[in-house]
Amino acid sequence: MTTEQSLVATAIDAWKLNIGRADTLFSGLDDAGLQAEVAPGRNRLIYLWGHLIAVHDAMLPLLGLGPRLHAELDAAFLTGADRAVADLPSAAELKRLWSEVNGALLAGFGRFTAADWADKHTVVSADDFAKNPLRNRLAILLSRTTHVGYHLGQARLAHDAD
Amino acid sequence: MTTEQSLVATAIDAWKLNIGRADTLFSGLDDAGLQAEVAPGRNRLIYLWGHLIAVHDAMLPLLGLGPRLHAELDAAFLTGADRAVADLPSAAELKRLWSEVNGALLAGFGRFTAADWADKHTVVSADDFAKNPLRNRLAILLSRTTHVGYHLGQARLAHDAD
Repeated sequence: MTTEQSLVATAIDAWKLNIGRADTLFSGLDDAGLQAEVAPGRNRLIYLWGHLIAVHDAMLPLLGLGPRLHAELDAAFLTGADRAVADLPSAAELKRLWSEVNGALLAGFGRFTAADWADKHTVVSADDFAKNPLRNRLAILLSRTTHVGYHLGQARLAHDAD
Repeated sequence: MTTEQSLVATAIDAWKLNIGRADTLFSGLDDAGLQAEVAPGRNRLIYLWGHLIAVHDAMLPLLGLGPRLHAELDAAFLTGADRAVADLPSAAELKRLWSEVNGALLAGFGRFTAADWADKHTVVSADDFAKNPLRNRLAILLSRTTHVGYHLGQARLAHDAD
């Protein structure tokens, strides 16, 4: 394994670790469990889970892996706040969407070379990328990994001690 | 910039971005503001800030950058839960420690080559590293970046709407 391959594999490993943590937390909950709030009056777990699915779905076009699979989630989980939409998917449906979207991402990650990860993502222009070469695919992966952690820290407040 | 240099610079940039976010949140608070709880009866902001400082301080030996600077923080912020120690540093003192520890890390990061980031951290043995080359310095950096995000997600509950 070359240095650049090791660096990329490490970043993908960090992503998978955090997806696994979120999976353990959310996939084990039923519809009632997903109604728990992270703090009184704040986001419910169902919202955080759907939000992560919508954000990860949007990574597909952002990384150049293909079109959105489930843009219909945005109104309930991305553009709107929790409780803006009353009719939300069931726990079983969210679990299916979560697996589908993260599976599509992982399959795409496997096709990228190290140079692909250091190349620009689809929202930055070639000119802007020339000015700031850190606006690359890896930056998206790292940002979204931290984003999982961010909401996981909140979600754990609903159930654990830390 | 080579691919491996770009990948490393991107990871350090993600670290700096999250340190900056935490800095904006915590450094703007006075002693009273740091008493806020992330949710009723849960960790106070002062604990989360001290906890991040202690964890980052422990990165110095873990990455091979030198000894701990402030191991005296561990009892209040790492090995103990919030409120286990009554006498905590002031906001001004925490701000000084936060800058000192993160400054020492950033200075150290600047001395690492891409190969150094892909090399083992100090807690894994050479044998174990040969079996799993992803137990490297970059894995520590990414893990601690997500860790900042994890507690930032909680800390924001004390003051914002998300």
